[in-house]
Amino acid sequence: MTYTVDLNSDLGESFGHYTIGQDEKVLGYITSANIACGYHAGDPNVMRRTVGLAHHHGVGLGAHPGLPDLLGFGRRNMAVDPDEVYNMVVYQIGALQAFTASEGERLQHVKPHGALFNMAGRDKGLAQAIAEATAAVDRELILFGLAGSELVSAGRDAGLSVAEEVFADRTYQPDGTLTPRTHSDAVVRDPEEAVSRVIRMVKEKKVKAVDGTDLPIRPDTVCVHGDSPQALAFVQHLSKAFRDHGIQVKRVGER
Amino acid sequence: MTYTVDLNSDLGESFGHYTIGQDEKVLGYITSANIACGYHAGDPNVMRRTVGLAHHHGVGLGAHPGLPDLLGFGRRNMAVDPDEVYNMVVYQIGALQAFTASEGERLQHVKPHGALFNMAGRDKGLAQAIAEATAAVDRELILFGLAGSELVSAGRDAGLSVAEEVFADRTYQPDGTLTPRTHSDAVVRDPEEAVSRVIRMVKEKKVKAVDGTDLPIRPDTVCVHGDSPQALAFVQHLSKAFRDHGIQVKRVGER
Amino acid sequence: MTYTVDLNSDLGESFGHYTIGQDEKVLGYITSANIACGYHAGDPNVMRRTVGLAHHHGVGLGAHPGLPDLLGFGRRNMAVDPDEVYNMVVYQIGALQAFTASEGERLQHVKPHGALFNMAGRDKGLAQAIAEATAAVDRELILFGLAGSELVSAGRDAGLSVAEEVFADRTYQPDGTLTPRTHSDAVVRDPEEAVSRVIRMVKEKKVKAVDGTDLPIRPDTVCVHGDSPQALAFVQHLSKAFRDHGIQVKRVGER
Amino acid sequence: MTYTVDLNSDLGESFGHYTIGQDEKVLGYITSANIACGYHAGDPNVMRRTVGLAHHHGVGLGAHPGLPDLLGFGRRNMAVDPDEVYNMVVYQIGALQAFTASEGERLQHVKPHGALFNMAGRDKGLAQAIAEATAAVDRELILFGLAGSELVSAGRDAGLSVAEEVFADRTYQPDGTLTPRTHSDAVVRDPEEAVSRVIRMVKEKKVKAVDGTDLPIRPDTVCVHGDSPQALAFVQHLSKAFRDHGIQVKRVGER
Repeated sequence: MTYTVDLNSDLGESFGHYTIGQDEKVLGYITSANIACGYHAGDPNVMRRTVGLAHHHGVGLGAHPGLPDLLGFGRRNMAVDPDEVYNMVVYQIGALQAFTASEGERLQHVKPHGALFNMAGRDKGLAQAIAEATAAVDRELILFGLAGSELVSAGRDAGLSVAEEVFADRTYQPDGTLTPRTHSDAVVRDPEEAVSRVIRMVKEKKVKAVDGTDLPIRPDTVCVHGDSPQALAFVQHLSKAFRDHGIQVKRVGER
Repeated sequence: MTYTVDLNSDLGESFGHYTIGQDEKVLGYITSANIACGYHAGDPNVMRRTVGLAHHHGVGLGAHPGLPDLLGFGRRNMAVDPDEVYNMVVYQIGALQAFTASEGERLQHVKPHGALFNMAGRDKGLAQAIAEATAAVDRELILFGLAGSELVSAGRDAGLSVAEEVFADRTYQPDGTLTPRTHSDAVVRDPEEAVSRVIRMVKEKKVKAVDGTDLPIRPDTVCVHGDSPQALAFVQHLSKAFRDHGIQVKRVGER
Repeated sequence: MTYTVDLNSDLGESFGHYTIGQDEKVLGYITSANIACGYHAGDPNVMRRTVGLAHHHGVGLGAHPGLPDLLGFGRRNMAVDPDEVYNMVVYQIGALQAFTASEGERLQHVKPHGALFNMAGRDKGLAQAIAEATAAVDRELILFGLAGSELVSAGRDAGLSVAEEVFADRTYQPDGTLTPRTHSDAVVRDPEEAVSRVIRMVKEKKVKAVDGTDLPIRPDTVCVHGDSPQALAFVQHLSKAFRDHGIQVKRVGER
Repeated sequence: MTYTVDLNSDLGESFGHYTIGQDEKVLGYITSANIACGYHAGDPNVMRRTVGLAHHHGVGLGAHPGLPDLLGFGRRNMAVDPDEVYNMVVYQIGALQAFTASEGERLQHVKPHGALFNMAGRDKGLAQAIAEATAAVDRELILFGLAGSELVSAGRDAGLSVAEEVFADRTYQPDGTLTPRTHSDAVVRDPEEAVSRVIRMVKEKKVKAVDGTDLPIRPDTVCVHGDSPQALAFVQHLSKAFRDHGIQVKRVGER
């Protein structure tokens, strides 16, 4: 039996004179790029450069729409209603899609960023708004959402292909939600353990929750980071472990 | 012989809590709408509403990209280079295009706004950047530019259909450029005279410059405003005059 | 016995090309102006003009800091922490204070805007941040807060003079909070009734809650609006009623 | 005879999630800090932190107002008129002043940033606007301008103390202006030569222009950068050279 999984990472988060991330380095390991669209990060110059770079690496191109909050990097919850969210997601997908079109490429997926991702994971109305905005722009787009979340359900209801996302370095509550970062046991600090957990998710479709019970989980795509030397080292380590376990890393759009 | 002309107007220039323009009223008279894309005016909520409204009126939908200057309403020149302009135009066309797609409609045209329109009329590098950005997103888009300007030439060079735009209420220099607004004779204040000038442009392809000489001109589309009662009265007056003179008002995309 | 009360209104909420409000008209009736500081509304040009205009009318000048959300007009709650709020309030007070200084005037008060006002009315940490920011810039500033709210308490704790604010057209819950706008009985629609309620608040320091019980209340200042013909008519009506009842309208800074 | 000179550097140019500069390191060598005010860079959180840090190092605190262009880092010329510039400078000085006040400190100086600095060096109207804005907020503020520029003259005309600024690593035209960066000989690349030029400016009040002629110059303050290892090394080198030549580095406000 062959196992496949997608590796995604947030890219193109620089802005104007400001540079962050090590996009070129992480692109060698991932299969899907979530590219910031100018709301929480990114600007038209960065977007074009990032689309070109990701395309060059053969990576699936995704829009990474966020809240209109550059100062807070899209990580601060805001009281936005579904209509506003629908519109800001249509706007940002369109902006990025124009850059993929100008490269002769297609957009592969949409993954909301930060606070928008978290809010849409729990709030059915916001989840539907994002799913419907995505479908309204292009029904072929794949929607990325936290495995088991409202966003994943809303995507299916809207007739979209969805990719359920798991986190290598985060723990899960018995109800399948991520342990909030404010809890001391939110993060899996040992890289070996993090890798083992992901391997098990991929092969057995299970993850152990913080209370020790096994949860069913569907790891279509794993979120990784490349914004620090340790983060990059972890990605390399994970890639090697996948190879060793016969797990193929393949972009979601290819399956 | 039948004459046809397009009437275009800038719409969707409200922002958040701020409303300007009388979009619903002017939509009854025009055939092409230039819809702000969130840089100099407009926001995703306004864009969606305006696209829906313009579509409902059967008007050609256009992107109206501007400089990133909400405070100055995109009317302040900025030192931007062709690469930046290419990218900001791709971004804004894409954002608007997503709203036309979500309405099941196609984008008809692109017309740069304010300072970007003026700079691109004179600066070949910026004109090319705009034309190439437009072509890169969609080769079927029609580029609007000041009749006889660099933007019109750049559009043709990029293989785009172009619509040469004339102004009913502005005077022309002997070299075909608009008389700068700082000059006392920049504006045609008498509505009757303004109407006569446009009729002559459409029928004879000529306009009298400020020095009395006749200039050849190609009036594919006439720019009108609907943001004041007088402006709206003028549009109504112009429409009636076109009818009386057997000039058909038709959107550029239909011809 | 003489009764006095302050009438305050939000002014200077235009931005760039966008105009809202009827600042000149309402200035004839109020005694304190809350001037937007460029975050939720206003810009440096509007601020200077508004400070000049308010000064000319002899009205107390106040800073009206808001959340960094021009698109939402500062009315959308955001997850901001006390440190961020302290800093954004210092920033905005300072910006406005420079305009009052350049007019040879002193800033009289600070009143947070919209979502920031509401959040600080209930959240002790945010209330303290605003009070301490105000005191840090100038201990003589008067802090405006919803009568009986956390903001009023935090202002006193920070050693500031405070002005407790009441609303003529809003109803109160038995616990002294405003009835949320989502409730059908949130607004007092009858102008006569609204005027009577304010008169009673000023003379008897009492207001009837939605359940019919009497609440103690301290109406140092009444918030009025001038952004519509009806709103302005109400202000005129309220002013006349105050006169008829021997209630002097006086700016808080004079008392 | 004792020579004194001020060393200034641009600080606080981080924004939100984005960090640039090595503020802590360069603060050990400079005497005046130009702190970004949120228009071209900086935000309230960064401003507070930077004011605290600079104060802790005993460095003179300055406002560094820029054009409203975060995307372009304030380096793109914009067509702004003197009124707008007056207002945006008042706004930004005020915002920073509130942070110095909240630290119990006084603001020492104002130095415009980037494109605003360059435009005001040549354009008398903009120079006057900046000088008058500075004087309107606080007549004790020292205005920094390019040595011999319109900004320096306007500052004196407005009754302000001025500090004429020189650049260690830039060459001068025979008319005293900086050689534009587009020229191949714009920059002094040899650190030894750059140091010698500054020493001569301080001791002899002269600098050699690109055509070999000697220009009179008044080096009240020298602009240095700390945003790269080489830049920091140069500052250290310059500091040592000053010490070796008996030149005291002292903040302008102390003299």
